[in-house]
Amino acid sequence: MRWTQTLIPTLKEDPADAEAVSHKLMVRAGLIRKLSAGTYIYLPLGIKALNKAANIVREEMNRAGAVEILMPALQPPELWERTGRLKTMADIIFQFNDKSGKPCMLGPTHEEIVTFLAANEINSYRQLPINLYQIQTKFRDELRPRSGVIRSKEFLMKDAYSFDADEQGLDKNYQAMYQAYRRIFDRAGLNYVCIEGDSGAMGGNFSQEFMTPSPVGEDIFVQCAKCGYAATLTLVPCGVSHRGAEVTEKSDLGGLCALRGSVANEIKEVVTPGTTTIEAVGQLLKVGPDQMVKTMICTAGDKTIAVLLRGDHELNLSKLSRLLKEPNTNLADEKTIEKVTGGPIGFSGPVGLKSIDIIADYAVMEMSNFVTGANKKDMHLVNTNIDRDFKPDKVADVRLVTDKDFCPKCRGGIQIKNGLEIGHIFKLGTKYSNILGAMYLDEKGVRQPMIMGCYGIGINRIVAALIEGSSDANGIIWSKELAPYRVLIISIKLDDPVIRAKSEQLYKELSSTMGDEVLWDDRDISPGIKFKDADLLGIPVIVTIGKSTVKDNTVDIKLRKDNVKKAVPFEQAAAEIGKLV
Amino acid sequence: MRWTQTLIPTLKEDPADAEAVSHKLMVRAGLIRKLSAGTYIYLPLGIKALNKAANIVREEMNRAGAVEILMPALQPPELWERTGRLKTMADIIFQFNDKSGKPCMLGPTHEEIVTFLAANEINSYRQLPINLYQIQTKFRDELRPRSGVIRSKEFLMKDAYSFDADEQGLDKNYQAMYQAYRRIFDRAGLNYVCIEGDSGAMGGNFSQEFMTPSPVGEDIFVQCAKCGYAATLTLVPCGVSHRGAEVTEKSDLGGLCALRGSVANEIKEVVTPGTTTIEAVGQLLKVGPDQMVKTMICTAGDKTIAVLLRGDHELNLSKLSRLLKEPNTNLADEKTIEKVTGGPIGFSGPVGLKSIDIIADYAVMEMSNFVTGANKKDMHLVNTNIDRDFKPDKVADVRLVTDKDFCPKCRGGIQIKNGLEIGHIFKLGTKYSNILGAMYLDEKGVRQPMIMGCYGIGINRIVAALIEGSSDANGIIWSKELAPYRVLIISIKLDDPVIRAKSEQLYKELSSTMGDEVLWDDRDISPGIKFKDADLLGIPVIVTIGKSTVKDNTVDIKLRKDNVKKAVPFEQAAAEIGKLV
Repeated sequence: MRWTQTLIPTLKEDPADAEAVSHKLMVRAGLIRKLSAGTYIYLPLGIKALNKAANIVREEMNRAGAVEILMPALQPPELWERTGRLKTMADIIFQFNDKSGKPCMLGPTHEEIVTFLAANEINSYRQLPINLYQIQTKFRDELRPRSGVIRSKEFLMKDAYSFDADEQGLDKNYQAMYQAYRRIFDRAGLNYVCIEGDSGAMGGNFSQEFMTPSPVGEDIFVQCAKCGYAATLTLVPCGVSHRGAEVTEKSDLGGLCALRGSVANEIKEVVTPGTTTIEAVGQLLKVGPDQMVKTMICTAGDKTIAVLLRGDHELNLSKLSRLLKEPNTNLADEKTIEKVTGGPIGFSGPVGLKSIDIIADYAVMEMSNFVTGANKKDMHLVNTNIDRDFKPDKVADVRLVTDKDFCPKCRGGIQIKNGLEIGHIFKLGTKYSNILGAMYLDEKGVRQPMIMGCYGIGINRIVAALIEGSSDANGIIWSKELAPYRVLIISIKLDDPVIRAKSEQLYKELSSTMGDEVLWDDRDISPGIKFKDADLLGIPVIVTIGKSTVKDNTVDIKLRKDNVKKAVPFEQAAAEIGKLV
Repeated sequence: MRWTQTLIPTLKEDPADAEAVSHKLMVRAGLIRKLSAGTYIYLPLGIKALNKAANIVREEMNRAGAVEILMPALQPPELWERTGRLKTMADIIFQFNDKSGKPCMLGPTHEEIVTFLAANEINSYRQLPINLYQIQTKFRDELRPRSGVIRSKEFLMKDAYSFDADEQGLDKNYQAMYQAYRRIFDRAGLNYVCIEGDSGAMGGNFSQEFMTPSPVGEDIFVQCAKCGYAATLTLVPCGVSHRGAEVTEKSDLGGLCALRGSVANEIKEVVTPGTTTIEAVGQLLKVGPDQMVKTMICTAGDKTIAVLLRGDHELNLSKLSRLLKEPNTNLADEKTIEKVTGGPIGFSGPVGLKSIDIIADYAVMEMSNFVTGANKKDMHLVNTNIDRDFKPDKVADVRLVTDKDFCPKCRGGIQIKNGLEIGHIFKLGTKYSNILGAMYLDEKGVRQPMIMGCYGIGINRIVAALIEGSSDANGIIWSKELAPYRVLIISIKLDDPVIRAKSEQLYKELSSTMGDEVLWDDRDISPGIKFKDADLLGIPVIVTIGKSTVKDNTVDIKLRKDNVKKAVPFEQAAAEIGKLV
């Protein structure tokens, strides 16, 4: 492609609304343009990279035995009502009525639709296993779209759904997808890690996430450099850090308390005016957060409970929800807090809290003489002690892991990182097939629910993730497989007929062997801008033809990634470039 | 692909809601399934055909020099407000608010968005010409979706938009698209005709439509078998059929009237109770429709006018709109009719109609002693005559052509046909660029509006149109380029290990040379069903391996289109099949 015959509007300045490196560079290198908040136009370079990512995904899905289909974006909300997700995912679903008054929605994902399809079209074990995938546009009503195409309202996704007769079948399909995902991200050239995931809204029972470490990633995960353990933050179990053995839930709390060393001092009420945060109380009373216990009032379904955490620890709602087997678990509102504690928000404490159950985090069980709220406005208690002053009803692991904790596998140190989710694979089980009636007759003629898995990849995110992990101060550094073009020819001084002829000759020669993989910068513009744009675009092989190379009958070949220039005789240029790509 | 590893749910019966051949066969051959009114799931065979159609389109667009981009389906209505199309196309636009309350719409087409892009990114003549295309999903809120994927609410479209500095540039881009469209439809194997089109809602000044003749096509076009003239019904000019010379608009109406032969009889009011239609009046008064004049009261913007037509002719609102240079031209409502004529609907007539202008169709000018409404309830006039009883303010061609008319080019006979629009190319001019500010600086530094063209193809319709034109009583007959698979291997009695081994050998051999173009019917099912399904699926080359062919060390090769079977030695089978595809 000749530069002058396509549209590559490069920019010198970062766009004002961009923070993520990929967002900045995708706009500056002319890959995308914003249409409105959360929607982007893919310009010629952008759609070429996106199509390449989609093709890698399609090839690897086919190779793994998955079968392509295409489901509509317009979906009937009835199916989503039946699975309960019209409510639980309401925040991100675009809903509206059509002209005839019928309710419609735009699909943020397709479990309901594909299960409806399986319920209608698959009825015998002979038709199983099958894995159906599509490469299709999803819509999500993001209130705060950000980071360019990373979190947008409309994006291209590959979603696959496997149907099996038994768990072993699911395992096999799941493993095939796991391997396919590794091949996809390897081919794309991504730096990624596969972590144990939280099944969340999908309602499955096991999942893994593929993450690109990135400061703009909204997912937080834990990684152990020693043993390779990796999991999403909310999943990581916390041991009791100061002891050698893992603590499990015990009814005999006395045993645990005995481990605390200090002598119990006298409990006292102190006045702490307006101090509703751990920091404020700590400053006032001159104690560290590890000497304070915070009391979080939570609701789980229609129950209310108190959760005790060490002052420097954070509540893990996901663990609490799993502990209580109640998906609808949240922090209580002010009114509920006042009702159950008798005091205002910010002053809750376990002492005297009789009306609700108290769950203490393991770390709290190691503490003594700590500060807690007094369940009265502007009052805290000092020298609070477990057993003497109150008794937790349950002890459990309900906090988020910190980088001071140990790896739950090897007891080594862990790191907490931000990651950009590029893929997620789930073992769904029978949740959707049971609700939507996706049943098959087994060999004995017995009706059984199909066992499902689902497997998603954000195609746009593959492109953005590559750039997040592969750029320098001058621009993008594409991998071979995702690069919009593999070769860029820069011609200096095109008004010189020899330079023009040589450039044209090389462009045609390369195009004839590698097709639409060659971009020729044939603009009538200064060499400085051409070189700057070449680095910004990040095409892997950059070939320069100018006065001096023509004089020597050579071309200069440079790899974008290592920036080393090499002069190659003109006659050998095409062959040499062919080897590089 | 092995049949048992994909999903091809064939059906014996036509779906109850299907009328179009393509709709019936796409469902029965397992290409599509309805999700809800106007939305379809593409099953594996369906998406393979759709992808093949999309690939042909992409290849030919690239070959013609168009450059791929991708624009969002979610669009900001502001841009559509500025061009006025939020109102004129309101019927088919899905509109809603997002969670933040911001108005959104789903794009039924992308002129507004691409012009917005050009306005921002193109500013110099050096960047022109350019032709930007996308293959993208469109949404239209069809009140009555029908004919399967032919008129659905969500469909895949290729839309291209050219930008030029001058009319010659537009001509060149337009011609390149015209040629690309012919190549696309030729390669797809479609039976089609290119007709002069009505620019309608696009607001352009010239357009051509590509049509597949089909009884389910909703577009009506006129074709002359003699000279090849073809145009959309509403565009075809009507001469005055009984005369040798074309009649043009004249102020000297006396001259036209002189051509009428009969003597004017005495005008009389007759009682015609409850007769509000041409048929009813004709029956009652024993006159043919060609002796009656119907008076259509119309509104054009804020003007009201009367249009006179011969009783057996139909009003052409499109011609009337062009004549009056008023895009918003319609039949008047009952209230307006009563107000301007003084009589109820169904009894309007030109005599005494003073308050509004009267436009007479050319054919009316040849009539004498005709019947018209009397502008009174249950009353008509007989022996009405032009000039004596009333004078038209204008004479013009305002009717639809009929198959009794002559070809406007060669004066031969014409045919009126139903067609399915598969492509439409428009010269848009500067309508969108002027409104949305898509300006460029010419060589002299003067700001000029870009001159636009737009070019659409319904990808789903390519697939449906092929089937509309290529099937028999047993099923689909695919063209080579659109066929989901090019070869189908039918194995009879797969429990025979020799037959299984031979089948597997041929399947692997063919797959290794032609990739995913081979479908192997490896089902454990009766031969009768396999043969019936083979004809239904319509894969071009059908290869059968069974007891007798194994005994003879042959395979049977049949072409679906001519149904002739040929025995070929097993060792030569792959080579022979290779030649056929």
